[in-house]
Amino acid sequence: MSSAIDRFLQENLEAYLQQTIRLCAQPSVSATGEGVEACAGLVKQTLQQHGFQTWKIEGYGNPVIVGRARGRSERTLLFYNHYDVQPPEPLELWDSPPFEPQIREGKLFARGAKDDKGEFMARLAAVDAVRAAHGGELPCGVLFVVEGNEEVGSPGIARFVQDHLDLLRCDGAIWEEGGIDFEERPGTSLGRRGILAVELEVQTLSRDAHSGSAHILPSAAWRMVRVLASLKDENERILIPGFYDDVKPISELDLELLRRLPDNEPYLRATFEVRGFVGGLTGFELKKAVFNPTCNIQGITTGYQGPGNKTVIPAKASAKLDFRLVPNQDPTDILKKLRTHLDAEGFTDVRITYTDYMFPARSEADHPLVRLAAKAAEEVYQKPYQLIPLTGGSSPVYAFARPLGIPVIDAGVGFGITNRTHAPNENIRIQDFHNAARHIARILDGFAGIWG
Amino acid sequence: MSSAIDRFLQENLEAYLQQTIRLCAQPSVSATGEGVEACAGLVKQTLQQHGFQTWKIEGYGNPVIVGRARGRSERTLLFYNHYDVQPPEPLELWDSPPFEPQIREGKLFARGAKDDKGEFMARLAAVDAVRAAHGGELPCGVLFVVEGNEEVGSPGIARFVQDHLDLLRCDGAIWEEGGIDFEERPGTSLGRRGILAVELEVQTLSRDAHSGSAHILPSAAWRMVRVLASLKDENERILIPGFYDDVKPISELDLELLRRLPDNEPYLRATFEVRGFVGGLTGFELKKAVFNPTCNIQGITTGYQGPGNKTVIPAKASAKLDFRLVPNQDPTDILKKLRTHLDAEGFTDVRITYTDYMFPARSEADHPLVRLAAKAAEEVYQKPYQLIPLTGGSSPVYAFARPLGIPVIDAGVGFGITNRTHAPNENIRIQDFHNAARHIARILDGFAGIWG
Repeated sequence: MSSAIDRFLQENLEAYLQQTIRLCAQPSVSATGEGVEACAGLVKQTLQQHGFQTWKIEGYGNPVIVGRARGRSERTLLFYNHYDVQPPEPLELWDSPPFEPQIREGKLFARGAKDDKGEFMARLAAVDAVRAAHGGELPCGVLFVVEGNEEVGSPGIARFVQDHLDLLRCDGAIWEEGGIDFEERPGTSLGRRGILAVELEVQTLSRDAHSGSAHILPSAAWRMVRVLASLKDENERILIPGFYDDVKPISELDLELLRRLPDNEPYLRATFEVRGFVGGLTGFELKKAVFNPTCNIQGITTGYQGPGNKTVIPAKASAKLDFRLVPNQDPTDILKKLRTHLDAEGFTDVRITYTDYMFPARSEADHPLVRLAAKAAEEVYQKPYQLIPLTGGSSPVYAFARPLGIPVIDAGVGFGITNRTHAPNENIRIQDFHNAARHIARILDGFAGIWG
Repeated sequence: MSSAIDRFLQENLEAYLQQTIRLCAQPSVSATGEGVEACAGLVKQTLQQHGFQTWKIEGYGNPVIVGRARGRSERTLLFYNHYDVQPPEPLELWDSPPFEPQIREGKLFARGAKDDKGEFMARLAAVDAVRAAHGGELPCGVLFVVEGNEEVGSPGIARFVQDHLDLLRCDGAIWEEGGIDFEERPGTSLGRRGILAVELEVQTLSRDAHSGSAHILPSAAWRMVRVLASLKDENERILIPGFYDDVKPISELDLELLRRLPDNEPYLRATFEVRGFVGGLTGFELKKAVFNPTCNIQGITTGYQGPGNKTVIPAKASAKLDFRLVPNQDPTDILKKLRTHLDAEGFTDVRITYTDYMFPARSEADHPLVRLAAKAAEEVYQKPYQLIPLTGGSSPVYAFARPLGIPVIDAGVGFGITNRTHAPNENIRIQDFHNAARHIARILDGFAGIWG
């Protein structure tokens, strides 16, 4: 079957590139709204042209386009993609205009070429190839969720999924991005940490006072320092009671996967010119640390910040924090524990505003979908498949994985940094586009079979 | 003698007001430079017209004008004043233009009317009154130092004094400002706290990193929180080793003076709407606290400060601090101890930039000059004289008091807040101008006599 798939993709590569070009020529900047509505329509039309029943769903920010195609099996694979793109600025750094796609040096250059229109089209190519190889019928059902708010943080996606569980019922999902790494090794992340982002605010005076009264008038800046110091000790242990209650121990399998990961210590040292890592970690401990939840200070704002000095006692102070959470921590639970902790420490006057949260998400390394993706990738890329047990960042993967009870893996196109994702001269290598389609097609081909 | 003095001042009041008007009509904004040079010339000319030998001294910012008049005694009293003023903006809030002085409702309105041109002229009136009462000869020498950088922090004044110790040799000094308080009680501050203002900076990464790496990449924000927390404990005790070594215990006399001071707790509560004071202090403890040196955070700058949240680990953090120092702490010594402390705590990577310093200054409550000023004030104002053992703020008083070895007291005109110092509609009450001249004249009259 793989040879029929590969033949189809080889023969039709140019046609799918042309469709990618058409999609990339349509601006769709969610940060400004430019072209978003038109692009949603184009995605819907494109899915219909490839044999999908479609829905344009409103009420969650920019429209979410859903496409569904039935298959021989009831088993269904869901693809998550997005049609919105980052703003193209600064325009002067582009060698060709961002919304006038251009092929040169074996690459397609355009805003969205990689993130995420090229990935979306590579998947449609795979669907068509598998359908052709199976005499016009798909071996499993296929669902596309193509949203329009990813580049502004997907604020409505969790609610969208919750509201459409019937429509979205499926047995596994493939996320955008991922695919290969710096050294062109294929692989997937098996999980993302969750996040709880909050802003803490405190006010001690009705207005800033002269610092000649610092012996009597309470300072919001000092109070915020005390609040922050109460959250974490010098050994990086978070001091909120119960914070670690739901943290799962690292499994033997995860430890083994961590051991196999390449060492990125030299890369980090070079990129950030660090003297040392958090807690003095090195080597394997550094790899393991992704299983540590964190309490990060995004920023602190208080008092005078101009040149020289100004003799004031700040009346107000605020700090933005994000906690990265590991399986099975719950951001809503951590928010409650943070409030309880501050109250217990006497910081009842500190206001907490939550600004974002996502749950952690995790797929098991030995899930048959993971094994299928690995086998397919090794065939296409001729390199061992890399399993990253947990990624430090967060993503709305959980919004699908949790309520739908499904494993979610990555199988994107190329590598984000090489492809200048979010930057001028964003591009996709045609070879990567082709390989990603071959990889996805193999997964589609085998998906129904893994359920026995 | 007092009756001759009072008669002279009564008869000539109008002439001195006219000279004040002439001086106030000349802009002299040190922050912008507007009119500064012309005003320096006018002050020099005015001093000459009142019988002073004058010097215009360059090299310390705007020119310093020095005037000297010999007296029958070698004993010399120095007056510190300044000819520069605050910017007049916002202009639309003035009822009459700031540099077109106007007398109405018994007050003279103009930028500089109170701070500090009116005070300067009240002193010249007093000098002339005493000279007239003594048959054309002054009973003691008189020195005027009229500087032009006071409103921008007097950055050159300490060096100016050090460089001109011979010219400035004297036996006591009267500072600008002070005079009467809210309730028109005369009094003087006997001392000002010193200050050491520094900026601390730390950098942990070459650039901000994604907070998904917070488990491994060190945060400048957290490092700064640790640095600040190391400086002061929760009981307001400053933790820099040796910080309190040179602090003099509060004398019995100072405790007695503190007891006599009015209670400003209700005023502070109302003005700043505070829930409680530093360390829970109330009553007498609140008055005593001015003898506690402080470590104030003027401001903290680190990371993202815009709306919402941004998932970054800050690469850089800075904090501006000021330490208010009590007799006999030395800001240069405290700066060294701060460096030693940070190094000992492992914060060798924290840069310290000092932005300002002043020494504390102190005159003894039982000095004959203080007793003379008190007696004179009680005669003029018909109210008990108030002695404030130490003021929370800092001033360049030390720049004169320390190298010249002299007591320094306040004897200004009116009360700064009532007179809208630094604000639109700055004014001086003519009655206060007259009283200040009478007060100063009595001090000049008695000054040589206090040395026995």
